[in-house]
Amino acid sequence: MTLDSINTPAELKKLTREELPALAEELRQFILDSVSKTGGHLSSNLGTVELSIALHYVFDTPDDRIVWDVGHQSYPHKILTGRREKMASLRQFNGLSGFPRRSESEYDAFGTGHSSTSISAAMGMARAFQTKGEKHVAVAVIGDSAMTGGMAFEAMNNAGVYDDLPLVVILNDNDMSISPAVGALNRHLARLLSGNIYSATKKGIDSVLSIAPPLREFAKRLEDHAKGMVSPSTIFQEFGFNYFGPIDGHDLDALIPMLQNVRRLAIEGRGPQFLHVVTRKGQGYELAEADPVLYHGPSKFDPEEGVKSKPSSKKTFTQVFGEWLCDMAQVDPILVGITPAMREGSGLVEFEKRFPKRYYDVGIAEQHAVTFAAGMACEGMKPVVAIYSTFLQRAYDQLIHDVAIQDLPVLFALDRAGLVGADGATHAGVYDIAFLRCIPNMLVMTPADEAECRDLLTTAFHQPHPSAVRYPRGSGVGTMPSTELRTIPLGKGEIRRKSNAPLGKRVAIIAFGTLLYPALEVAEQIDATVANMRFVKPLDVDLVKSLANDHDYLVTLEDGAIEGGAGSACLEVLAKAGMTKPLLQLGIPDEFVEHGDYSILMAQCGLDAIGIAKSITERFPDLLNVKTAVLGK
Amino acid sequence: MTLDSINTPAELKKLTREELPALAEELRQFILDSVSKTGGHLSSNLGTVELSIALHYVFDTPDDRIVWDVGHQSYPHKILTGRREKMASLRQFNGLSGFPRRSESEYDAFGTGHSSTSISAAMGMARAFQTKGEKHVAVAVIGDSAMTGGMAFEAMNNAGVYDDLPLVVILNDNDMSISPAVGALNRHLARLLSGNIYSATKKGIDSVLSIAPPLREFAKRLEDHAKGMVSPSTIFQEFGFNYFGPIDGHDLDALIPMLQNVRRLAIEGRGPQFLHVVTRKGQGYELAEADPVLYHGPSKFDPEEGVKSKPSSKKTFTQVFGEWLCDMAQVDPILVGITPAMREGSGLVEFEKRFPKRYYDVGIAEQHAVTFAAGMACEGMKPVVAIYSTFLQRAYDQLIHDVAIQDLPVLFALDRAGLVGADGATHAGVYDIAFLRCIPNMLVMTPADEAECRDLLTTAFHQPHPSAVRYPRGSGVGTMPSTELRTIPLGKGEIRRKSNAPLGKRVAIIAFGTLLYPALEVAEQIDATVANMRFVKPLDVDLVKSLANDHDYLVTLEDGAIEGGAGSACLEVLAKAGMTKPLLQLGIPDEFVEHGDYSILMAQCGLDAIGIAKSITERFPDLLNVKTAVLGK
Repeated sequence: MTLDSINTPAELKKLTREELPALAEELRQFILDSVSKTGGHLSSNLGTVELSIALHYVFDTPDDRIVWDVGHQSYPHKILTGRREKMASLRQFNGLSGFPRRSESEYDAFGTGHSSTSISAAMGMARAFQTKGEKHVAVAVIGDSAMTGGMAFEAMNNAGVYDDLPLVVILNDNDMSISPAVGALNRHLARLLSGNIYSATKKGIDSVLSIAPPLREFAKRLEDHAKGMVSPSTIFQEFGFNYFGPIDGHDLDALIPMLQNVRRLAIEGRGPQFLHVVTRKGQGYELAEADPVLYHGPSKFDPEEGVKSKPSSKKTFTQVFGEWLCDMAQVDPILVGITPAMREGSGLVEFEKRFPKRYYDVGIAEQHAVTFAAGMACEGMKPVVAIYSTFLQRAYDQLIHDVAIQDLPVLFALDRAGLVGADGATHAGVYDIAFLRCIPNMLVMTPADEAECRDLLTTAFHQPHPSAVRYPRGSGVGTMPSTELRTIPLGKGEIRRKSNAPLGKRVAIIAFGTLLYPALEVAEQIDATVANMRFVKPLDVDLVKSLANDHDYLVTLEDGAIEGGAGSACLEVLAKAGMTKPLLQLGIPDEFVEHGDYSILMAQCGLDAIGIAKSITERFPDLLNVKTAVLGK
Repeated sequence: MTLDSINTPAELKKLTREELPALAEELRQFILDSVSKTGGHLSSNLGTVELSIALHYVFDTPDDRIVWDVGHQSYPHKILTGRREKMASLRQFNGLSGFPRRSESEYDAFGTGHSSTSISAAMGMARAFQTKGEKHVAVAVIGDSAMTGGMAFEAMNNAGVYDDLPLVVILNDNDMSISPAVGALNRHLARLLSGNIYSATKKGIDSVLSIAPPLREFAKRLEDHAKGMVSPSTIFQEFGFNYFGPIDGHDLDALIPMLQNVRRLAIEGRGPQFLHVVTRKGQGYELAEADPVLYHGPSKFDPEEGVKSKPSSKKTFTQVFGEWLCDMAQVDPILVGITPAMREGSGLVEFEKRFPKRYYDVGIAEQHAVTFAAGMACEGMKPVVAIYSTFLQRAYDQLIHDVAIQDLPVLFALDRAGLVGADGATHAGVYDIAFLRCIPNMLVMTPADEAECRDLLTTAFHQPHPSAVRYPRGSGVGTMPSTELRTIPLGKGEIRRKSNAPLGKRVAIIAFGTLLYPALEVAEQIDATVANMRFVKPLDVDLVKSLANDHDYLVTLEDGAIEGGAGSACLEVLAKAGMTKPLLQLGIPDEFVEHGDYSILMAQCGLDAIGIAKSITERFPDLLNVKTAVLGK
């Protein structure tokens, strides 16, 4: 195997160009084998095999920088830069990250995970090279869907004014985000693609390149005009970039000379270069080519048989939300559903089918999604924005400025709240409680299980205020949601278990969200009272005060950051009421939590039943008398 | 005066077209008189006089919606929609807002303040009209600089796919944001403008419109081609909009037929329309035309004499920052300064002059600004991002995902923290402590005065971590900053006053930021200990604990939201230490605080010396014995 001998790009560069296609086949097979064993992103990585080889073959990495936008297409890059053997640990605790990480390799120039950051970052690097007088090039590799994110345009707009910027933007155009790409840009790209993808086999691409870009473009326009058509110029040229392409991104004989060309131009001070590369998600693996969405991020599977959908025993929170949305839309004609390019992930597939005119996939454009929702709410519609907690960070200003200040009834269905497991720190939704509850008018709800999730969604939907219902990835304990659309009294928690411990040794656990259930487990052992709070804001002040009155110790429990979190909301209430009571805050500690199995990570944070019991009894040793046996069990 | 008779757009519509130019002159004079008496935005409003008249003359407001991007150009609109007499109360407590506000008038379709939201909001309204089967049009009026904000592009990209959307986007192209506009888009607009602005006097604009847009465009291309040039198509066409213009935005005879045309097309289901209007900031007032930046947002002035710069007795925090930046840049060649289009407001004028190659105005593009800084930091540069607290909200995800997770040494100089006075709720910087301190790796600093601001900037700059130094608008008590570049030990507060009160009646005020000084005033009266904390994160835990040990009561004081704020950080520390002590949190209450004089607003929030003393003595009546006389003084 050639691949076995490639541990650095330097070794890759020793191969002849003729040897590269075979290497690409090996690499593709390796990725398929590896991802089928570990799970992870597949379609995107099968699509970037040739591009990754060509980039490291042509560019002087790691001194030239490659920034992989989103980064879920960086597996070939990882394998070619010394991490082949570690691929078996992909996305596992203490294993390789599923995204580029600066701490993982000098070849990972910039950590990614969220979309549309690459051009800004690469531009920063390119300007730094210029400032320091270093002759390197920064490369941003960005998908067509990530290109719709506003900050990509902000970066293009800014980069275009530097006439000598050593920046190369590679548009990896595969006409597919996780959800189908939408928007005018997409149509623009389709026009550019119509029938004229350059590949080395079709035309002598080197000879095409021998004419300078402006000339070539002028010649092309003339030719188009002769054909009776007026060709649109590309948006990218309007932004001050040299535009090349589109070229076939699986054709190494097209890619390599083109990359050599753009690198030369960039390093010679000819300004920002834009290369439009066309690839196919899932390339080379028939099943993935046929259904790239299914193979976007599969769990382990048998490559021969393909991904089999297992009959899952429990509904996920995402499914509960999706079903609720359809049921609510059925009875309320002014409900609209909005997603920033996360139809599958947010559970909107069925909603789109049943209510296509009330379904909005606005592209990877969280900011627009939220203000668009605000505009609709002004006209009496009831928008539900389905968004991951981590991606709401990108629309924080819009939530404050356009929704909350105007007190508009927009419901945010926050999926992937808390830790998310294999995707790691970039995708964790652990700050939402802190960053939402400080905003006036906002309502913040934390369902403990699936049934309550549905009821809180209904509750939130009926409020004449902005609201957020946050729920974690995957499933909870599996309570069965009602088929009805029931509400819960706003701001009312409930006591789920009452302590019989004697005064002096009585503790109450104040739980927010799904950690209610480990809390109930622990409570059996230390005879604790357990409250299911449901609402972070408005907080059930009476309940908190009454718990403080009746107990000697309080524990707050949440799957979010401790700093400024729901536990702090309880502290604020007690301080305001002039009540002083020993209180232990349990939640996500003040550090970025890496990727790995969700239950391992939660245990690491001390948020499984054992960890919770340990923290409580260490802090309140009195309780050791009432607890039967937890530690060492 | 004709203007006196116009209290609604219906009355405006009764005028003949011939009467409108005279009305425009009256309106312009009224604005000049009015703003010179109240202060407020001037240049932008002198630029939109004719456009506002034409819009209300042509469109069926309030049923058609006008969304004013940023909204600082909406004074003519306010005057024409029944608020002429209230203009004397502009930006004052309980007076008219300086921005559109839904609660102020049915003609204010959407509240604005921050940039680039208008297209998203108007698109939401337009889709709502379609959903409800209502025949109205939504209009977004957006400046050329606001157009560089990414979310404007996200909205254009999304709107362009709806072929029958009743949306009109009016680009108010005045080639000037507060700072000069930058970026490729700006160059693109300059190309569009070169020598071919339509005005009714130059060409028969009605006849131009009589040919359908695509035909016209095609004809224009052919003509260009004949001239031997290849004309770029406009970016806006590529996004699926019908593009019209550029037209002279001060020529009512050009504006009115053109607006009638785009309204007709929009309402007939011909899809989103884009009208490019060229205006001049400060139009009609010579002094403002000559220096639109000086007249962007002046205080009261004599229109005859113009704005006179008063020799100010005290430096503003902005000036302190600007001087520090130059001094630090002088000794450290890897410092770079970055602003999202706020050169003047953020105090970077001198820095740009002295260090032009290390100065970056990236346009109204906060997201890009932050990730661009992260890219530079990866390459060893030391970026200082000068940004208003309220605008950092727009780069929150980039701060977390690109800066904090990678623990990059980017310094955020957060101007306009706390309440901002006349600009009101949209511009208040009161959430930053809560939304920053929950992020791992972040350092958050709150200088008490000018001298400390400089020292904390130096301190933050030398940390190998991301940091934020937040300081308010205007000046503080006026301490003189050192000429040196001194650091303060990280995470160390100081005791500024020690109580001599007997135990049982001893209170400590734990102050963050400039409220230290009213705290010291109050302390004289109730013999309180006062600590100047300086750091929210890392918090001086030892100091908080020792204060708790030595005092009976604690008070935390900050000019930020109480929920999750610095006071809550103190509560968390005490809870963790197992210390229970009565604690009163003082800060901005959980509601949006309207515009008005800063000192009035602070008093309203109970954050002046009288209010602080009142809150403390009401909460801890024991202290009435030690206080000499505060209330009723």
